Formats: sequence, C-alpha cells, structure tokens
Amino acid sequence: GDIAKGKTIAETVCMACHNPATGEGNMDIYPNLGGQKEAYLKSSIKAYKDGQRTGPMAGIMKGMVASLSDDDIANVSAYFASLK
Amino acid sequence: GDIAKGKTIAETVCMACHNPATGEGNMDIYPNLGGQKEAYLKSSIKAYKDGQRTGPMAGIMKGMVASLSDDDIANVSAYFASLK
Repeated sequence: GDIAKGKTIAETVCMACHNPATGEGNMDIYPNLGGQKEAYLKSSIKAYKDGQRTGPMAGIMKGMVASLSDDDIANVSAYFASLK
Repeated sequence: GDIAKGKTIAETVCMACHNPATGEGNMDIYPNLGGQKEAYLKSSIKAYKDGQRTGPMAGIMKGMVASLSDDDIANVSAYFASLK
C-alpha cells in the first residue's frame, strides 16, 4: 500500500480512536495498530467492512471503514504497519 | 490477569502462530500481540470463542481458544499486553 496516502486516511477517518502518529488506541478497548502486520490489518478492516466481525465494537468499526475502498484499506494498513 | 499463568498458556496454546516471547505473529496474516491493549486482547479472544468473528482465520482461532476459560483468557491477555 501507499504509506503517504494511508497517513491521510489515518489522520482523518481513524484518529477518533487511534492516534495517527503512533497507532495507539485512545481507549483500553481500542487496539494499538502501530507496527501491526500489514496483511493482518487489511484482513481485519475487510472483516469489519464485510460484517465478519460482530462483537461489541464491530458496529462502530463497520461504520468507520464502510467508505474505504480496497486501495484505501491497503494504504492505511501499510501506513500503520510502518509505525514501528 | 495473572501474567505468569498467561505465559504458560502462550507457551502452549498460542505458540504455533504467535511467538510466546515477543507476541509476534509467525506469518504475515497472524497479528503481533506484544504490547497490545489487554482489554482488546480479551474482547478479541472472546469474539473468536463466541463465533463473533467469521473471517478466514477465525475458524483456526476459534478452535485454539475453545478450551480457554475466562480466567485463561484474562491471564494470556495480561501476559501478551505486558510484552512492550
């Protein structure tokens, strides 16, 4: 994915719950994303988007990622994975 | 959770896919768990156990965590969260 484009997404869509500079979750129940495996981030975001995750937080995430294209998902995943 | 008890679980149940010393996923599709939020780890493991995650890897994870009690889940979550 394109890290620069991913950064823009992180700084807009994701920043409400994940610190865009470090990927850290803003609350204990929100995961840290920095340095996470890129492929895992992609599959997780897609799982939320496709309704394959239905836990307590899944509804919020599904709304957040509904507008993301596959490219957006690849880019934002590359960005957070790059935050070691 | 009890970190010492969690370490034992990590070194038995989880080590096939997650390095018990660092929490790192052994493949690109397996998430890194070290330093993850404890509450997020607990809710994720429960989501797999309760069938609230049905993505490609969810079947494997559901099998892995099926035998874990709530205490086990709290302990292994505390252990991986403690790996900064």
